[in-house]
Order: sequence, then structure tokens, then C-alpha cells
Amino acid sequence: MMKTSPTFSERIEHVPTSFLREVFKVIADERIISFGGGLPNPHLFPTDALLRAAQTALQENPQAALQYGTTEGLPELRSAIAQSYRRKDGAKIDPEHILITSGSQQGLDLLGKALINEGDTLAVENPTYLAALQAFSMYRPSVLPLPLTEHGVAVDVLTKVITRQPPKLLYTIPNFHNPTGITYDEDTRSRVANSIDPSQTLLIEDDPYGEIRFEGERGTSFFNLVPNAVLLGSFSKIVAPGMRLGWIVVRDEALRARLYTAKQASDLHSSTLIQHIVHCYYRDNDTDAHVHTIASAYKEQRDAMIEALKKHLGDRATYTVPKGGMFIWVTLSPEIDTMRLFPKAIDEGVAFVPGETFFTGPAQKNTMRINYTNATREEISEGVRRLLRAIEQYEAEA
Amino acid sequence: MMKTSPTFSERIEHVPTSFLREVFKVIADERIISFGGGLPNPHLFPTDALLRAAQTALQENPQAALQYGTTEGLPELRSAIAQSYRRKDGAKIDPEHILITSGSQQGLDLLGKALINEGDTLAVENPTYLAALQAFSMYRPSVLPLPLTEHGVAVDVLTKVITRQPPKLLYTIPNFHNPTGITYDEDTRSRVANSIDPSQTLLIEDDPYGEIRFEGERGTSFFNLVPNAVLLGSFSKIVAPGMRLGWIVVRDEALRARLYTAKQASDLHSSTLIQHIVHCYYRDNDTDAHVHTIASAYKEQRDAMIEALKKHLGDRATYTVPKGGMFIWVTLSPEIDTMRLFPKAIDEGVAFVPGETFFTGPAQKNTMRINYTNATREEISEGVRRLLRAIEQYEAEA
Repeated sequence: MMKTSPTFSERIEHVPTSFLREVFKVIADERIISFGGGLPNPHLFPTDALLRAAQTALQENPQAALQYGTTEGLPELRSAIAQSYRRKDGAKIDPEHILITSGSQQGLDLLGKALINEGDTLAVENPTYLAALQAFSMYRPSVLPLPLTEHGVAVDVLTKVITRQPPKLLYTIPNFHNPTGITYDEDTRSRVANSIDPSQTLLIEDDPYGEIRFEGERGTSFFNLVPNAVLLGSFSKIVAPGMRLGWIVVRDEALRARLYTAKQASDLHSSTLIQHIVHCYYRDNDTDAHVHTIASAYKEQRDAMIEALKKHLGDRATYTVPKGGMFIWVTLSPEIDTMRLFPKAIDEGVAFVPGETFFTGPAQKNTMRINYTNATREEISEGVRRLLRAIEQYEAEA
Repeated sequence: MMKTSPTFSERIEHVPTSFLREVFKVIADERIISFGGGLPNPHLFPTDALLRAAQTALQENPQAALQYGTTEGLPELRSAIAQSYRRKDGAKIDPEHILITSGSQQGLDLLGKALINEGDTLAVENPTYLAALQAFSMYRPSVLPLPLTEHGVAVDVLTKVITRQPPKLLYTIPNFHNPTGITYDEDTRSRVANSIDPSQTLLIEDDPYGEIRFEGERGTSFFNLVPNAVLLGSFSKIVAPGMRLGWIVVRDEALRARLYTAKQASDLHSSTLIQHIVHCYYRDNDTDAHVHTIASAYKEQRDAMIEALKKHLGDRATYTVPKGGMFIWVTLSPEIDTMRLFPKAIDEGVAFVPGETFFTGPAQKNTMRINYTNATREEISEGVRRLLRAIEQYEAEA
């Protein structure tokens, strides 16, 4: 019998490949101190409370928790999410505005499915979250990178772009941005909101880290500044990523109907059991206190990382100082290509993600993303010491 | 502020709409006896064993069960699936051939994503599972309906089609077909396998019901007859649909790599916690015995339905007698349009799915799908009695 591979779709052959897979391979090596991942600290998972929630979900109403469910998700869980926004932002978000997704990654996929025709313009911060580009790229948009400053996207560039030809979509991570760790200030938020024409451009606000704030005030959500913006949320950082549960908030009814269709075609609905577990967890625990615990721990880890960077790298590096989330963006001297630094760092026993990975078009090659939520204070200090040795070796060979 | 909906993608505006949503609305009404759904019998969910499995998963290794996981799925679970095939079919299926999906619905979506370019030909049994057409339709194939007989697809028609222009994909549900309940006989399986050129056509074998057999012998899987066929499986009918967990078996490494990319872009991976729960459930229980319990119960329900059809509808109907699965296909006299019969049946207090819903192109309008797994013996008898009254009323008005 003849054996050949089928021909594949054009979309699958045009996905940006990810250096992250290479990073993840080395992360598995226990000798490596990894700043490369994007994993929440597993010691902070609310395991006991989730065990109780799982027991409750399977004892209270097992037949409902194990049967097919509705595509839009469990009503009680959608209510809990809506109430949380009302309490924190005073935003008029109703349970029916919320569609439960299998992580916010699926939210990105469903938005792409429902909205993007080949060649539609998708404006993104540059650098940005690579997996978002991968999800959207399946639908073949034309990606338009916008420079990012420490205060948010470069509004002057955005305004010029809009004057020329408004993009169909603008994708943004305003809080504790991945990969840079920056947070939009209020002025940039309102200028961005004022610059876009909501009849032309849909703003997609991705906010997986917003709750994990350890400094400053909660910023105004684009969802409350721009009509018809959509907002993506996730339980991955505030409960646990293994749930694979997130949501999209959409006020526009017509868009919601299309996202419903896309969700139904994609997987019918997210796991009923997981939704019941997370619902019980929220109903029966002080979840705000738990989020506070996570944020406090991450602040200590961030402080340890900043201290280590200052002590060991000194003038060799500049870096962002995030007020929340999981990432710091490090810029080395212009001669250093972090993609070439990477194997030397691995030899020394430390991993990071080269910044080039996150750029569309020309990259700032002397940058890297480092994560601080998955290492102890001692590992952080030792890891940065190893990074210094790798840099010194790189400089010696240059 | 101006408020308008964004423009949507062409793919989302071309999804076949489903009458099933209408059916599901009336199913919620408790006065209606529903043969309309496709739900497993919730009284047969292994709730106690799943409660123990959830406790075990969250006690044995909670940090792994709650953290991000690998895109292809939990190795132990993939091994258990591979072993099950080896034991039942003697098939050489290795764990690395298996990609865990969020239900087999997601398997269909990933195959569409990785394989279909707009206009590619997708051959399907006619009638077929509507949600499969919805998943594939997102990628804009040209759908080619093939007539279905009681023995399987009409091989003579398939052969003619292949001679003219081989389809890129052939989608088939060989065991206890949805909606018709028929099962391919061995002769049809081998003739189909021999007729397709595997270098031109990828055969997609969807087998969500295959384990739920209460008569006859397990048929030879297309996966073992055709090189490079892909096989979709699901825990929905043998454990519980609320898990939303299934798998794709793919031998071809290049296709697997594309499906991996599609899965990663779609939701990173399926819920780690759910995978750990199902793994513990399989490891710690006699799951074959449980599947046998389900099949025995469904046989009684099928018998009750066949008996009721014979008693109440007599010569008014012909029907398939499934050897497993969940559905019977009923054909009424040619004058009756079941879409017009439906509201009368609802008035009488019984629901079914009009056959027209499952056809591509001209439909056999005098057909319907009835499900027998979600009603008691008494409800089945009373439901068919109500159906008779609706038919009599229809005939009186004709």
C-alpha cells in the first residue's frame, strides 16, 4: 500500500513557528534554572480548595456536571464573572455578555474564526504575545506591527495608521504586557480609545494578568472606554492553567451570535465538569484573598529578580519594572544578539526567551523576556549570575 | 458613541444552520418526551468512580494536574488509549500516534484547519452528522454527498466519484451511524478501502459510538484497512460527555505535526485536570465492565423503542434496527414531511429530529432521527403513542 502525507491547508503552512518549543525542551532539564517559561507558580495553586470544589461539584449534581452543556457556558459561572467586573470596575457587564472559552487562547481563535478574512489588517503591539499571532495567523490576516513604549502603544503611529486605513482589528494587552511587562498609563488608554473609529476597528483587549497586580491602581479597561471592544479573561493565572478555562466579554449581540457558532463548531462547549468545579470554587471560597496571596508572592519574586539584575548585570542591562504579572523585559547592549546568547546561557545553566521571538518584522535582537514566577529567591540570584557569565563569554568572543 | 457590529468573516456567515437548536429548546420543556437529543443516559455516568478519580488526581500530584500541559496530551492517557486499541483490534497503534482533543468535535475542527483549503472536496455520507459539517464548513470545502445504504456508503457511487475526481477527504461514521443507526458490513468496508487512492484521499473515520455495541461483532476499523486514515475517538459515550475529551489517531508524522500546530493555536492543550481524572479513572477501575453496563442498558432501551414502533406505528413506518449506539432512523410514508410534522408532535408532547436536518442537497423529507437512550420504557411507549397521534392528525389534514 502506498503511503504519502496528504496536502495541507495553506493556513497551517503559514503559521509563525515558535522558538518557544526549543525553550520548553531545555526547561525540562533540571540542571537549568529557567526564566523562559510563562508558568504560574504551582506552589500557589489552591489545591485543597479545588479538591473540595471537585468533590462538591460531583456530589451536588453529578448528572449535570457530567452531561453535555450549553455552548455559551454555565450560567452561574457567567454570573460570577459578570459580578466580579461590576464590583471592580463598576462596568455594566451582564452574564449574557460572557461566553466561556477553553482558556483565553481559544478566545483568540474564535475571534479569528468569526472575524478575519484573508488579508484583513490586524494591528498588534510590537513585540506581542506569540501565541496570539499563531491563533490569528490561521485566518491569514495582514499583521501590522505598532511600536510599544513604556506607557503603551505609540499613539502617534497608531493615529497615522488609522488615518491611512483603519485596521479591522487592534489586539492589545494593556496590563503587565507579555512579553514586556509594561502597563498602559491612563493617558495612553484614553488617547488610544479616542483615536480608533469603532465602526471600523474592533479593539481586542487581552487581560490574563490584570488581577495579578502588586503595585499601583487598576487601570481603566478599554472595554469601558471603547464601544464594542471585546475583553478576554482567564482563570489560568488566578486559579490554575490546567483548568483551561477563560471567557470573552462581548456586548455586541451579532458578534456574540457568531462567536457562539464558532465555539459550537470548535468543541461544542468547554468541559462542564471543569466549569462546575470552578463555579463551586468561586462560590465557596474567598477567592479575592487567594489572588492577593498570589500577587504578594509574585511581588517578592519580582523584587528578587530586579535586585539580582541590578547586582549582577549593573550597567550591562536596562529592564522594565512590572507592577504585576509575570514578565520582565531586559535590554542588553546593542551588540548582543540574544538568539546567539541563548546556547551559551544554556551551557551555563540558565534559560530565557530571546526577544526576537516576539517581534513582527525587524526585531530588537538585544532583548529578552524573563519570567520570575517559577524560581526561588536563590535560583533567581544564581540564574542571573549564570546569565552574566554567558554575557561575559559572548563579549569575550565578539 | 457610535455602535455598530463589525463585519464578520465569510466562513462564519456560511455555516449550515441547525434545526437542532430549535429541537433543544423544546427538549427543556418537561412535558415533552424527547427522542430529539443525542445525550447519553446520565443515570449510567460512573459518578462515584469519577469522584474517586478526581480526588486521586488532586491528591497524587496536584501541581501537575493543575499546571499547563503538553499540547499532544497526557502521556499516560495516550498510552491507555493505544493499549485499548491493541487489545481490541490488534492494531499497531502507539501512544505517539494519539493527540488528545477537547471532544471529537475538536478533532473535526483541527482536521479542517490543517487540511482544507477553500473549495477542496469533502465527500460525506448523506445524511450525516450535522456538527461535523458545521466544523468542516468553517474552512469552506465543497461538500459532496454520497448516498447511504443499510450496509454503508453506496460504493458504486463512491467509485464513480473517485474515477472522475478523487475527493480530498472522505468523512465516515461506520459504526452505529449518526443519524441513521446503520453499521457498515465487512464487505462494504473492504470495498471502500480498496476504492480510494490513499495518495489522493484521506479517510476520516469518526467512531464515537463503536464501543457501545450490544449485538454482532466489532467491525474492522478503516484505520486498519487504509494507510493514513485518521480515526477519531471520544470519552463522551463511554465515560461522560461533560469531560469534553476525545482523541485523534494519526500514523502520518507530517499530518500529526500540523494537527499539533492547529491544536496549539486553538487552545494550547485540553484541560490537564480532566486528563488526569480520566487517566485515574481508567487506571483504577474496570472500565470494560462499565461500558458493558451501558451497552446492556441501551439494548433494553432500543428493544423498548422497536417494540413501541412496531405496536403503535405498524405499517406506517419502516426503521433501522441498530446494533449499538444511540439512534434509530425512521422512514414514514412519502407524503409526510417530518419538518411539518414536528410542530404537531410538539403539541402532542413528543420531540424528534426531522431527517431533512442531516441531508446535504435534496432531502428525504419523510425521515426522522429518534434517540432511545434518554427515556424510560414507559416514556418510550407513551412517546411513540403521541407520535402516532401527530401522524394521524397530519394525515387527517392532508
